[in-house]
This record gives sequence, structure tokens and C-alpha cells, in this order.
Amino acid sequence: MIDKDSLTHHISQQFNAELEDVRSHLLAMGGLVEKQVNDAVTALIDADSGLAQQVREIDDQINQMERNIDEECVRILARRQPAASDLRLIISISKSVIDLERIGDESSKIARRAIQLCEEGVSPRGYVEVRHIGDQVRRMVQESLDAFARFDADLALSVAQYDKTIDREYKTALRELVTYMMEDPRAISRVLNIIWALRSLERIGDHARNIAELVIYLVRGTDVRHMGLARMQEEVKGTANKGGDTPAN
Amino acid sequence: MIDKDSLTHHISQQFNAELEDVRSHLLAMGGLVEKQVNDAVTALIDADSGLAQQVREIDDQINQMERNIDEECVRILARRQPAASDLRLIISISKSVIDLERIGDESSKIARRAIQLCEEGVSPRGYVEVRHIGDQVRRMVQESLDAFARFDADLALSVAQYDKTIDREYKTALRELVTYMMEDPRAISRVLNIIWALRSLERIGDHARNIAELVIYLVRGTDVRHMGLARMQEEVKGTANKGGDTPAN
Repeated sequence: MIDKDSLTHHISQQFNAELEDVRSHLLAMGGLVEKQVNDAVTALIDADSGLAQQVREIDDQINQMERNIDEECVRILARRQPAASDLRLIISISKSVIDLERIGDESSKIARRAIQLCEEGVSPRGYVEVRHIGDQVRRMVQESLDAFARFDADLALSVAQYDKTIDREYKTALRELVTYMMEDPRAISRVLNIIWALRSLERIGDHARNIAELVIYLVRGTDVRHMGLARMQEEVKGTANKGGDTPAN
Repeated sequence: MIDKDSLTHHISQQFNAELEDVRSHLLAMGGLVEKQVNDAVTALIDADSGLAQQVREIDDQINQMERNIDEECVRILARRQPAASDLRLIISISKSVIDLERIGDESSKIARRAIQLCEEGVSPRGYVEVRHIGDQVRRMVQESLDAFARFDADLALSVAQYDKTIDREYKTALRELVTYMMEDPRAISRVLNIIWALRSLERIGDHARNIAELVIYLVRGTDVRHMGLARMQEEVKGTANKGGDTPAN
């Protein structure tokens, strides 16, 4: 089990500072990505093409943040040769940035749909679902990052569990929109833009779940991917001290 | 610049063997994933629900391979503290498995569409595009892995460049299928299954491109993501010795 205090146990103050830096850079990137999700959904629903354009431009910043954090991780691996929980921290960070970058990509795609919908005129259906699912996945992203910041495996577990709800709601929304397309074929193109946006949101939920699974790996030392939610829950709740401070091998 | 020979330069025979093992495990996983792409497309086009079911079952094996390779990478990082090109090799492998696992996921999704299409009856349109784009992305996956096996940055560059062609063909196919849905709204649900399959193929192309970019990072020491194809080409063709055998920092 690791917590924030274990970051300050190094004899080398410099090493402590590097670990704390890269972790705070990840969280800063996460904060910006979370804002992108929110802005992309707002741009779509409010038909705000200016805001959508802004989301697309900020995506470059996110890509740059990914590169920088990656370089920090490589530098720490090369110079500090971290072990045990420090190594898990670096691995979790270097994988989480991939998911954050892809959440940024999906937000940018939603913004592109928003721009297309602005050009084509307003689509009367699907916005309720976009707002609803959008709010939920934005919260998933936020909580996965909170779990990372606080080394909170329980919160991470609840994020992973919540992904099931998103998948179910996404499928329900999709069925309704397909029915709507059949009733009004002239709306097909516009409704497809809503469907693509919903699909992006569903994927953002998947990426938030991935980050949550990395938090569990970081804190518990267990790789819980592809494990099923029941076993994941056992790992988090039942065997709190298993894995301990050793690397997962 | 690194090549296969540089894997055999270690004083520790055991370290050499570990690096060679993890690399060959990645390539074996890649071979299976490539077969999954091919089988999923064949299952869709031949309406072969048995083959589709098989693709879905094999996906578990791929997930397990990802876990195993990840564990090997963590073990090598913890025990061997690799530097320079060895570190880049481990980083490239641990990121490539993520892309391979997602290619496996997308193949599994295509197989699910195949099963749905078998149940709903034959869809008359879109198969030509699926076959055509499917063949191309399968080759992209294969060549990205060949590039990894041979440390071939030029081949990796050509894979990354080819992704543009896939994106263009995907968009053309999508426009045609949308037109077809408008003409025959009763086919909407079936055509959507074809569209989802095409979208999965387009994403597989993206993942192959990611792997190709990791090969360039491995061989040249330069992070070429988000760089644009022109600059990427300069990095590969023009500055052959830049980066050399030092880590990318």
C-alpha cells in the first residue's frame, strides 16, 4: 500500500522533487483534459462553434503535455532507476497520459461534430442523452484523477464500476436514435453526428476506467485489467495489504 | 541507431536473453492479433458466425499476453535498470502491447458485428469496402510489426504515411453508406453494423500507426507523435544519426 507520504521517503531530495513534479504535471494535464470534455459537450449542446474551435486548438497543448510527461518519465527511469512503488508510480503515470491524450482526442472529435452540427442546423433529438452521458463521463474523468491524486483505490473501483452504467445508457440512447433515423431519414446525417459524439463519450468513459485500473495497480500492486468487476472488487476490498510495497512481479 | 546486434552486447547473458524473450513475445502477440484482424473481416464478409465466435474467444488469450509482457517489462525495469537503447526498447514494447491489445478489441467488436449481421440476414452493401480497407489495415499491422522486428524506421514511416490513405477511404465509404441509408431506411440498422465495422478498421489503422511511431522512437530516439508526416519524414530520412544511442531526453 502506498500513499502520498511514501513519496517523501527518499534520501535524495532531488528524486522526491522529480517524482512530485511528474505527478503534479499529470494532474494538471488531467485538469485541462477534464475541462476539454466539458467544453466539447457544451459546444455541441449550445451550438457554440467558437467554443468548439477553442477545444480543437487546445488539443495541441494536451499533446505537448503528453510528450513532456513522457520525457520526464524516461529521464527518471534512466537516471533514478526507481523500484517498487516508485516504479509503479512512473509506470502508472506513463500509461495514464496515453489515456488522457486519447480523452483529449475524443473531446476534439466531439468539438468537430459540434462544428458540423452548427453548419447543418439544429438537430432536435439526442441532446438530452449527450448532456446526461457527458456529465457522467466528465465526473468519471474527474474522479479517476482524484483517485490518482489521493492514492484512493476505493474511489478508483467505483469509477471502474460506473463504466458499466455508461455502456448501458449509451446503448439505450443509440437504439432510440436509430429508431428516430428510421422515422425521419432526412435527419440521418445530423443524427449520425450525435451518435458519433455519444460514441466518443462512451470511449472517454473507457479511458477513465483505464486510469482507475492504473490507480488500483499503483496502490495495490495488482494488475486488475480484464479481471471482471467482482474480482476487481475483491482485490480492492478484500486483500488490502496484498502486493504491499513490492513491484507487481 | 540500434539494430538487432545491439541486443547481444550485454555482459550478462541472462539480460540479453530477457530482452530477446520479451521482444519475441511481443512479436508473437502481434502475429496472433494480425490473424484476429483477418479472421474478423473474413467472418463478417462470409457471414461465418462460427469464425466470429472464435475471434471473440481468442481475445482473452490476447489480453493475457498483454499482462504477461507487461510483467516482463516491469521485471526488467526493476532488476536490470536498462538505459539508452535498452530502455527505449522496453518503453516501446510496453506501449506497443497497449495498441496490440486494442487492435484485438476492435477485431472482437468486428466479430460481434459479424454475428449480428448473420442473425439479421445479409446486407447487400458495404462489403467491398470492408474487404478492401480490411486488407489494407491488416497489412499495416503486419508491416508495423515487421518494422519492429527488423528495427526498420523507413518501413515504419511508410506505415504511418499509409494511415492517411485509410482515413480517406474510410470517409468515402462512410459517405456512400450514409447515402444508401437515406435511400433505404429499412436497411439502417444493418448498414450501421457495416459502418461500425469500418470504424473499427479505421481505428486499427490508427493503432498500427502508433506502433510504427514507437518503432521510429526506438530506432531514432525521437518522439515523432503529433509531428505531422512531413517532419516525421525529415526525422527518419534526413537526420539518420541524430538521437543515436542515447535516450530521448
